Amino acid sequence: MDREKDESYALTEKKENFSEWFNQIIQVAGLIEHRYPIKGCEVLMPHGTDILRRSTTLLEEMLKENGNKEVVFPLFIPENMLKKETEHIKGFEDEVYYVTHAGKNQLNEKLVLRPTSETAMYPMFSLWIRSHKDLPLKIFQTVSVFRYETKMTKPLVRTREVMFFNESHTCHKDWEDAEKEVKEASLIYSKHISENLAVAFIASKRPKWDTFPGAVHTKAFDIIMPDGKFMQIGTVHNLGNNFSKTFDIKFKDENEEEQYANQTCYGMSTRSLAAIVAIHGDDKGLVLPPKIAPIQITIIPIMFKKDGEKVLNHCKDLYARLKKNYRIHLDASDKAVGSKFYDWEIKGIPLRIEIGPKEMEKNVVTITKRFDGEKSTISEKNLEEFIENMLDNIQHDMRRAAEYRQKEKIQKAIDKEDVNRIIDDKKIAKVELCEDANCAKKLEEAIGENYMGDDKTKENSKCIMCGQQSRYTGYIGKKY
Amino acid sequence: MDREKDESYALTEKKENFSEWFNQIIQVAGLIEHRYPIKGCEVLMPHGTDILRRSTTLLEEMLKENGNKEVVFPLFIPENMLKKETEHIKGFEDEVYYVTHAGKNQLNEKLVLRPTSETAMYPMFSLWIRSHKDLPLKIFQTVSVFRYETKMTKPLVRTREVMFFNESHTCHKDWEDAEKEVKEASLIYSKHISENLAVAFIASKRPKWDTFPGAVHTKAFDIIMPDGKFMQIGTVHNLGNNFSKTFDIKFKDENEEEQYANQTCYGMSTRSLAAIVAIHGDDKGLVLPPKIAPIQITIIPIMFKKDGEKVLNHCKDLYARLKKNYRIHLDASDKAVGSKFYDWEIKGIPLRIEIGPKEMEKNVVTITKRFDGEKSTISEKNLEEFIENMLDNIQHDMRRAAEYRQKEKIQKAIDKEDVNRIIDDKKIAKVELCEDANCAKKLEEAIGENYMGDDKTKENSKCIMCGQQSRYTGYIGKKY
Repeated sequence: MDREKDESYALTEKKENFSEWFNQIIQVAGLIEHRYPIKGCEVLMPHGTDILRRSTTLLEEMLKENGNKEVVFPLFIPENMLKKETEHIKGFEDEVYYVTHAGKNQLNEKLVLRPTSETAMYPMFSLWIRSHKDLPLKIFQTVSVFRYETKMTKPLVRTREVMFFNESHTCHKDWEDAEKEVKEASLIYSKHISENLAVAFIASKRPKWDTFPGAVHTKAFDIIMPDGKFMQIGTVHNLGNNFSKTFDIKFKDENEEEQYANQTCYGMSTRSLAAIVAIHGDDKGLVLPPKIAPIQITIIPIMFKKDGEKVLNHCKDLYARLKKNYRIHLDASDKAVGSKFYDWEIKGIPLRIEIGPKEMEKNVVTITKRFDGEKSTISEKNLEEFIENMLDNIQHDMRRAAEYRQKEKIQKAIDKEDVNRIIDDKKIAKVELCEDANCAKKLEEAIGENYMGDDKTKENSKCIMCGQQSRYTGYIGKKY
Repeated sequence: MDREKDESYALTEKKENFSEWFNQIIQVAGLIEHRYPIKGCEVLMPHGTDILRRSTTLLEEMLKENGNKEVVFPLFIPENMLKKETEHIKGFEDEVYYVTHAGKNQLNEKLVLRPTSETAMYPMFSLWIRSHKDLPLKIFQTVSVFRYETKMTKPLVRTREVMFFNESHTCHKDWEDAEKEVKEASLIYSKHISENLAVAFIASKRPKWDTFPGAVHTKAFDIIMPDGKFMQIGTVHNLGNNFSKTFDIKFKDENEEEQYANQTCYGMSTRSLAAIVAIHGDDKGLVLPPKIAPIQITIIPIMFKKDGEKVLNHCKDLYARLKKNYRIHLDASDKAVGSKFYDWEIKGIPLRIEIGPKEMEKNVVTITKRFDGEKSTISEKNLEEFIENMLDNIQHDMRRAAEYRQKEKIQKAIDKEDVNRIIDDKKIAKVELCEDANCAKKLEEAIGENYMGDDKTKENSKCIMCGQQSRYTGYIGKKY
């Protein structure tokens, strides 16, 4: 099923052509099959599915800890429901898919495939919520969403079926409680991206004109890709009571007075897999952080004719022993050792254990880290303790390396020429801006690239556009 | 979010009107929300999602053990791909949904929403399989499938979006190897249904005219519902090389000769949740088998003004202790104790632990089994051991009870009048038949109900239709 089995290929170097490298690596590592005959729709292959399932499960556990309950809403949304929220539909009308026929019949009402689930869920929320005692209401689902992308599609990055889309939706008694939820959700996403995916990110408040359709404000989590463009992988929105007024989500407060609920929603998708590939991968293939690697360790027996059976049995014993604590695979196939090394390296498995007659004799194993290629010879006796430390260190080091590389990709700009130069240099420009949103808008127009968003400044500086006292630190760059 | 919160209701008795009872119970127990505004599409609520996720995970673990790898294929299938296999499309053309428009554009080619994934997957298989070394190829996915049901829809039983549809697809070097896979898959399904769901079933080979469109033969797993109708919850098909010839799935065998692959596919869906509800539920609500219960134990503190705090703290300690080994919930809400009992009974949680001042004083707990209402007072000291046994026993007893009730629902018929009488009596008729498939067909036509299928007979008897020596034991009854 994997490309490497039957095709010889030479990988493009990551530095040389990142985009080509990315497209190759996701195929040869067995993440996706790009030959499915519909544009923007790919097959998620076993290794890709395993990684996404694992990272989604880690995210879902945090959401459950936060009180969000899992549900599954139907894929179909009646067209009139989607069109109820005018701001919202403006944001999606060009990219929704319509089901118009079934069997030999034309449907009475067109059905829309969810591009996101606000308009599917919120009419139900209005049935479920009566009293302040029903609040907060917090749910999530992990489903495919569908967007008819007109821009060039790219596997895992811009697809027409977005798989493993994890969306949460919450209702609260007031604005403050919704703001608290925004903070908690942001904390969960920050933790997930940095601690599980081991990736660095920029969190910023999107400018007004780039806020989620129907939301009051949008906080975004962006990754800076190796080519210097930023890629949004998660967003957290405070919807205020825009949707609750449209969908009539009301409750009686403690004084028996009717109030509209305040809402939030937040989501993260397959792009998290794209981030892992792009940020950690190298010219040998994927490099997976131990926490989300479906297999953490492969054991490769080094067998010669003499004692081959003995080595294999020894490896089987070790496999049985380590299986209790780790996700582990024993590669007992009849492939050549070099080819096994090669395959598991491409797949990015964090640790490789080799055992041959020499190791067996001395009761040691040879361990190689995929992350930096470092080899160690370790006594079998304290193996678990050693592996435990090693996996922790790899996870930590990968995150640090990602943070370091992100730092290199962000550069401070003091004027517009500077911004242009930095973006030309495949980086993101960091700028100081005043309170006037027009300055951000003017900057975006002057540069012709995307203003990502901003956060309150920690500096005493001047606005890059008007020279007034700066209030915000913003980011501008090329966008995925 | 749950109906019981804000509406008073009286449940219909299961015996009195099974269908109404079923429709009520799945709402009040928080499994589904039926008010979603599209016919045949329901919201899967948190409790329903948790049960299905758990039971699906148990099934998926067995499939992985069997070597099936998880993938996710796109939802969209190009119309021309669906129409390639003539037998197959005949079976589905009346019930597929078509996407014809996206945004403001009409699509060049109509896209079909998967009713099942043969025609999405098999063109890819033909790219992946080259040599006998690529075989067997075994994959599965758990996704929603879409069928425009024209019959009356019923939540969890006949829906237009079938959620948590678990479908496996395999390719083999020859017919024998495919038959071996059919046996293994059947074993997995048998195990899952009886050991995890604790439900009894009839496994039979469907008659020729009811075989899956495009398959050589179909083995079905049917549940007999309390109203005496049978409901199919899983099927295993040997596709022979029908599809591989259409989709050009070929490989070079060990003699370098080109061969068409032999294929199987098998699936199971949300109907497994319907079976659990229908078979185990009673007039107080759901009764969940411990293996698939999202919560196995609820702790209810019995608090009076005096010592209330003490009791609660004691319950918290016990919760922390039992959490290590069990899926457990401490209900510390301010609802009345009776209302708590009621809620957790409706949800079918296997064990309830009550602790009040009396229990605390004696270092005991009161445990009540949901399955049979039996109460025990148990020393806190050996609680884990006791619970372990209890959960095992409940799982076992529930399965035995289901088997016993199934036995009562199947009755042997010696002639056509007998068949009619048995079906009128809300049971399934068991008949002996000869080798001639026409006899089964004639029986079905004469009775006007569904011939489910058969298995080799163990009896020395006569065919119910022609009087020849019987070869098969078959089943006939009303169908869901």
